[in-house]
Amino acid sequence: MNLHLEPIPKIEKDLVKNIQKKLDNKTKPVGALGRIEEIAMQVALIQESLNPKLNRVCCVTIAADHDIVEEGVSCAPAEITWQQMENFSRGGGAIGLFAKTNNVDLVLVDAGINHDIDPKCNIIDAKVRKGTRNFRHEQAMTPEEFEIAFNRGRKIVKELNNKGCNTVCFGEMGIGNSTPASALLSVYTKTEPSKCVGAGGGLKPEGIEIKKQVIEDAIKLHGYPEDPLEVLRRYGGLEIAMLTGGMYEAAINRMLIIVDGYITSSAALAAYEIDNNIKDYFILSHASSEGGHKYMVEHLNLKPILNLDLRLGEGTGAVLAYPIIKTAVNMLTEMTSFEEAEVFNSSDLTRL
Amino acid sequence: MNLHLEPIPKIEKDLVKNIQKKLDNKTKPVGALGRIEEIAMQVALIQESLNPKLNRVCCVTIAADHDIVEEGVSCAPAEITWQQMENFSRGGGAIGLFAKTNNVDLVLVDAGINHDIDPKCNIIDAKVRKGTRNFRHEQAMTPEEFEIAFNRGRKIVKELNNKGCNTVCFGEMGIGNSTPASALLSVYTKTEPSKCVGAGGGLKPEGIEIKKQVIEDAIKLHGYPEDPLEVLRRYGGLEIAMLTGGMYEAAINRMLIIVDGYITSSAALAAYEIDNNIKDYFILSHASSEGGHKYMVEHLNLKPILNLDLRLGEGTGAVLAYPIIKTAVNMLTEMTSFEEAEVFNSSDLTRL
Repeated sequence: MNLHLEPIPKIEKDLVKNIQKKLDNKTKPVGALGRIEEIAMQVALIQESLNPKLNRVCCVTIAADHDIVEEGVSCAPAEITWQQMENFSRGGGAIGLFAKTNNVDLVLVDAGINHDIDPKCNIIDAKVRKGTRNFRHEQAMTPEEFEIAFNRGRKIVKELNNKGCNTVCFGEMGIGNSTPASALLSVYTKTEPSKCVGAGGGLKPEGIEIKKQVIEDAIKLHGYPEDPLEVLRRYGGLEIAMLTGGMYEAAINRMLIIVDGYITSSAALAAYEIDNNIKDYFILSHASSEGGHKYMVEHLNLKPILNLDLRLGEGTGAVLAYPIIKTAVNMLTEMTSFEEAEVFNSSDLTRL
Repeated sequence: MNLHLEPIPKIEKDLVKNIQKKLDNKTKPVGALGRIEEIAMQVALIQESLNPKLNRVCCVTIAADHDIVEEGVSCAPAEITWQQMENFSRGGGAIGLFAKTNNVDLVLVDAGINHDIDPKCNIIDAKVRKGTRNFRHEQAMTPEEFEIAFNRGRKIVKELNNKGCNTVCFGEMGIGNSTPASALLSVYTKTEPSKCVGAGGGLKPEGIEIKKQVIEDAIKLHGYPEDPLEVLRRYGGLEIAMLTGGMYEAAINRMLIIVDGYITSSAALAAYEIDNNIKDYFILSHASSEGGHKYMVEHLNLKPILNLDLRLGEGTGAVLAYPIIKTAVNMLTEMTSFEEAEVFNSSDLTRL
């Protein structure tokens, strides 16, 4: 592969003391807003500013198909990938509605849908191939396909950043993509496949068993490459590779990254394996009820904000978390201080 | 006491099947939106409609002072109660900012602040007494005071309902009020006081020990009355009694009740003890990091939506949960069905 990846900027902690001072001077007991304060701190450190701002928040939802569905790892017909993406582009589906309700711009991307998308639909054509290759029998992507997918993800996010976006939710759509996500989890974290597989879009136990078998066979074929990019290329999906590239570019540009559910977390995991520094740019929106998500969360050492038993993807959980993150940032920048409010600062007193 | 309480309407389950059918026909795998679907179901049942709507959402934040602070149960000076309420009324403080950020109307109420509130501030004067009586030594409220507090809570909510509000967040402000909240928890659920006390606004271990002692002494004095209203009268606070009345009236009018943190949950607990039917009107916004909250949550058998380690009150957690609840309701009413979207409904297929 020919990817030359510059290092992700490490988040410097120089401003921590000043940000903390600002937080502690807000009219509330010290620390009483818990993780709202942690989120405000994180965004301030990413933006290197005591007055961070979330500009033009986007949800980048990337779709692809997966030849691995030939193995029987999905209960839904593959046509749903393109049908849903066109549905989203008309404001339909869960993410179409959630994005509208929460004032998030939805950016839809075709990374590898096995269908000619209606050009009237507002979906970015970044198609690499009509479907990710079946990784039970061959590498999911050729080196060239992988590079194109990764770099197109970077390019899309770079353009959004150029247009003023500094906060990005990531989501995905792709019938069959919980299988590559589980494979990535298994290989990156050396967790046995049986622990990494779940019901996906509604698989019964027999289907989950097939999924496990597919991943075990694939590991026999592709092994445990040392290079995290190589793991992503052999086991991933076109949309997962593009998401990973998008996240990578987001961090390079000091954008806040709001991670959605299981599939998006597998891209976050890949990005983390490529460069650990990316972790400080992540906010994990929710704990998916898909089986292996908890292992990803543990490995990434992230704390989900929402408890909603979601297992949908598309970016829905990320978009649901956004108003909370926005409130956290507004808290840091706009909430009254003790001086402004003429409220007595009890933390100056000796505590009981 | 002279309170004549009509029963809270039981939520009938007649519509469950039709609502479920509507949910299952949305363009997503059956059940994939987890608790978002549960919330939509709950609101639809409360409103007895397949097309529920959240109208004019308010956060009713009720404040009072507590003579119990004389015992040393709080680390903050009592002046903060009035200073913060006036601050909130100018859009300041956490709840002032959170309500504005999330498009919630903030309704501030003085139930018993020990200060003459500046009449220029937009705070409803429902003051019963300048401070709740010290329940270590006497009943927290006389029968008359209690009745006035409870009924004024009802009246305020009834007026909001008359003005078109059908969804209400409840919050509170009152230095010292985690002590009555812990006492109510202890007496209603027969949980030992040591498990019910926490740091409140930032108390050190010695202060928490005093709090526990105060509650033990109070229980010796007031016992375990059978009548839940009597428990609330002897151990509660003016704002807690008013919140309980407000919640009661909200349920009578089939309004959705979004419960905030520890203190507000103690009012929800009181309302639940008065009439179990109220539980179906509650959504619990978050799991407070205040020690005893988990026992309240268990007793009420509610599941918090947010994981934010908040311990502030004011209604902040409830307001943070509102956009999620709004999204859930919009999902039921506006999200595309399979027919509308021309997406293949995979749940009609035989599952793998």
